[in-house]
Amino acid sequence: MDDEQVTFPLSERDIPTHWVNLMADLPGDGPPPLHPGTKLPAGPDDLSPIFPMALILQEVSSEPEIEIPEPVRDAYKLWRPTPLHRARRLERELDTPAHIYYKYEGVSPAGSHKPNTAVAQAYENAAGQWGSALAFACQLFGLECEVWMVGSSYDQKPYRRSMMQTWGATVHRSPSDLTGAGRAQSEHTTGSLGIAISEAVEVAGQDPDTNYSLGSVLNHVLLHQTVIGQEALAQMEMAGEYPDTVVACVGGGSNFGGLTIPFLRRVIRDGATTRFIAAEPAACPTLTRGVYAYDFGDTAGLTPLMPMYTLGHDFVPPPVHAGGLRYHGDSPLVSALVKAGMVQPRAYRQNETFEAAVRFARTEGIIPAPEPAHAIRAVIDEAVAAREAGEERVILFGLCGHGHFDLSAYDAYLAGELEDPEFSEDDMNAALAGLPAAPALG
Amino acid sequence: MDDEQVTFPLSERDIPTHWVNLMADLPGDGPPPLHPGTKLPAGPDDLSPIFPMALILQEVSSEPEIEIPEPVRDAYKLWRPTPLHRARRLERELDTPAHIYYKYEGVSPAGSHKPNTAVAQAYENAAGQWGSALAFACQLFGLECEVWMVGSSYDQKPYRRSMMQTWGATVHRSPSDLTGAGRAQSEHTTGSLGIAISEAVEVAGQDPDTNYSLGSVLNHVLLHQTVIGQEALAQMEMAGEYPDTVVACVGGGSNFGGLTIPFLRRVIRDGATTRFIAAEPAACPTLTRGVYAYDFGDTAGLTPLMPMYTLGHDFVPPPVHAGGLRYHGDSPLVSALVKAGMVQPRAYRQNETFEAAVRFARTEGIIPAPEPAHAIRAVIDEAVAAREAGEERVILFGLCGHGHFDLSAYDAYLAGELEDPEFSEDDMNAALAGLPAAPALG
Repeated sequence: MDDEQVTFPLSERDIPTHWVNLMADLPGDGPPPLHPGTKLPAGPDDLSPIFPMALILQEVSSEPEIEIPEPVRDAYKLWRPTPLHRARRLERELDTPAHIYYKYEGVSPAGSHKPNTAVAQAYENAAGQWGSALAFACQLFGLECEVWMVGSSYDQKPYRRSMMQTWGATVHRSPSDLTGAGRAQSEHTTGSLGIAISEAVEVAGQDPDTNYSLGSVLNHVLLHQTVIGQEALAQMEMAGEYPDTVVACVGGGSNFGGLTIPFLRRVIRDGATTRFIAAEPAACPTLTRGVYAYDFGDTAGLTPLMPMYTLGHDFVPPPVHAGGLRYHGDSPLVSALVKAGMVQPRAYRQNETFEAAVRFARTEGIIPAPEPAHAIRAVIDEAVAAREAGEERVILFGLCGHGHFDLSAYDAYLAGELEDPEFSEDDMNAALAGLPAAPALG
Repeated sequence: MDDEQVTFPLSERDIPTHWVNLMADLPGDGPPPLHPGTKLPAGPDDLSPIFPMALILQEVSSEPEIEIPEPVRDAYKLWRPTPLHRARRLERELDTPAHIYYKYEGVSPAGSHKPNTAVAQAYENAAGQWGSALAFACQLFGLECEVWMVGSSYDQKPYRRSMMQTWGATVHRSPSDLTGAGRAQSEHTTGSLGIAISEAVEVAGQDPDTNYSLGSVLNHVLLHQTVIGQEALAQMEMAGEYPDTVVACVGGGSNFGGLTIPFLRRVIRDGATTRFIAAEPAACPTLTRGVYAYDFGDTAGLTPLMPMYTLGHDFVPPPVHAGGLRYHGDSPLVSALVKAGMVQPRAYRQNETFEAAVRFARTEGIIPAPEPAHAIRAVIDEAVAAREAGEERVILFGLCGHGHFDLSAYDAYLAGELEDPEFSEDDMNAALAGLPAAPALG
């Protein structure tokens, strides 16, 4: 290992050829999703009105690895492999003996990790919600793309809309008056991921030629994102180190799963002792304060019931700028890992995440998106703990996107005007009251 | 050569160790800059009130290569080497036999090629105008940074201001009421690069602890940017090809010079037959319609007189979105190359550059800044010409930045509401009338 080396470049030949399916390595099958009407286990056919069959088969697969179709791998070459970088300037700023590495997904055209699954889903003929990554991916494969964008993000990040339109997509503000689900939520002017999902699922269900596309939560989405962690494994090997701690932010769980799954498999298969930290907003503390129960993935109750940590499907989080983390539930897979104690969740207030993000920007240059600012908050705390313990720990984190469309939030933070919402006891009680009747989970 | 390969990654060990100084390879000394008052040749001492001596010595050096200081090379590792990519999807879209490569500088924290010289200048203790790149660079070396930002860009690109503030800089809209030069131009509410330079030079000249920093035009700035072309040379070698044509946009000339200088040196030293195309806006057609004469670099006439193509130092270009190309003059070095017939200039209207940029975004993913959209317009025309000629030409161009802060311009273009200003005969006559009395150039 060259001790001064800070970058660990791979070539396009190193882009993974397979996605990693952690489901095959977990003991037992886990609780199944339930049909929203009958509350009996949902099978592939129950999902076929809104998803293409190829993705459903990935969703329920028990194969440990799934081959990446060549046209998808070819599209990955537009921005992959992504950089792994050692944050030496941040280490010096923190005066820590810890070695800090970050895997940077902001080099993609859409500026985040999202295109990893968007191109895979567009290739399988999906088209629907969640934005710029999908608009870009649909353009690559010649599909029409219609987007329901969460109202608070639509208002906070107008250039995200411009970006989607540049790639040829149609963008609706959610809640919209185009769907029953949207009209029913018109009092929630900020919207939420749950409401936007309801709108897109409703539209996809009405037209046999239209499918729905989800940017996180489900197994097949986490699967597609495992290119991140596989590349990071190879790059950490180039660095001659192995992480003691892996940190990523979590909203629906795809960024977190994408980075951690290949490292989690090492824990299961080889007994590695890595710690995993899932960073979430204190304003939407699904993993730290939610309940582990069956709940709907969307607000209107159109999706199957999924076993997960949830704050209740009708919880509309306050409009924190980390829009990608404003989700009432969480990936069933990530939820199961938290439940099993393999992953430690931590919640952070909005202002402390921006304080960490500005510190990162002023040392490492890149201005982070508000979502990975949560991971950076956790990393800085960990690096300070390493300093206090006098231990040379190795920390890897996911810098899943840049903040070029979030600079109004930085404006507010620097002016001392950024809101700092909490999750209240009333919110908690409403969450518990809003859960659907369903079998209890252990 | 792997015919399917589209990326050509270098490692941080491949970051150049020297900058390339083309001045050493040009025949004769060329016309010198003149003192703005005496109109006698200006020497290093005339520049010392506003520039640090280390940069002045680079500016006038006749050494063919200048070593990059190790702290600068270390800062380059935050984002360099940058990617070289083959645009196979654009080639297919254009049905051209041409091979199109682009060198992408948008991966830098500031999103363009500008930090290549900003970190070099900040290291030499400069601090002054031209924005986000410098704010970032000053932060790296612990300097205060005060920015005069051209009014039209300040209004069109508010998040550029936020970015600079995130990195700790102070930002003024130019023309400002903080300087005599600004107050004298208060009727030009859009401002111009020439006015902003006057304001920053005025402030730097008043305080011995404050220096001025220029983002383009001068030799030392082009020198710093040659890391781009040197990396591109190595990457083209990995691709097993050599460009027939090299294309870059030109405003002050640093992006153009940075990419082309190492290839131009091959022409001078080895007789390579490469063509070089400099793409500029038809609304500010310095190289295609300007005169080759001595003129001031700024509006107020505070800088030395430089031998260059110019539209007159008091020309205020219409507020096209390619703010980096809104400059009345041009690098003396690039001007001399145009004058000698080694570089071909071409001018494009704003709408045709956005048409090219959208086409690029929809095939290659990256949404380009309005400046390199001019280069893309030229590249598409060249690729179509190659198709019509049935020739497998190799085209390399500089994609010097992304358009994440220019999406309001894409909005306007997609809505059919983008202005398409021309340069009029009246503008031309005003340009000629505004030239200072100075020796004629051959």
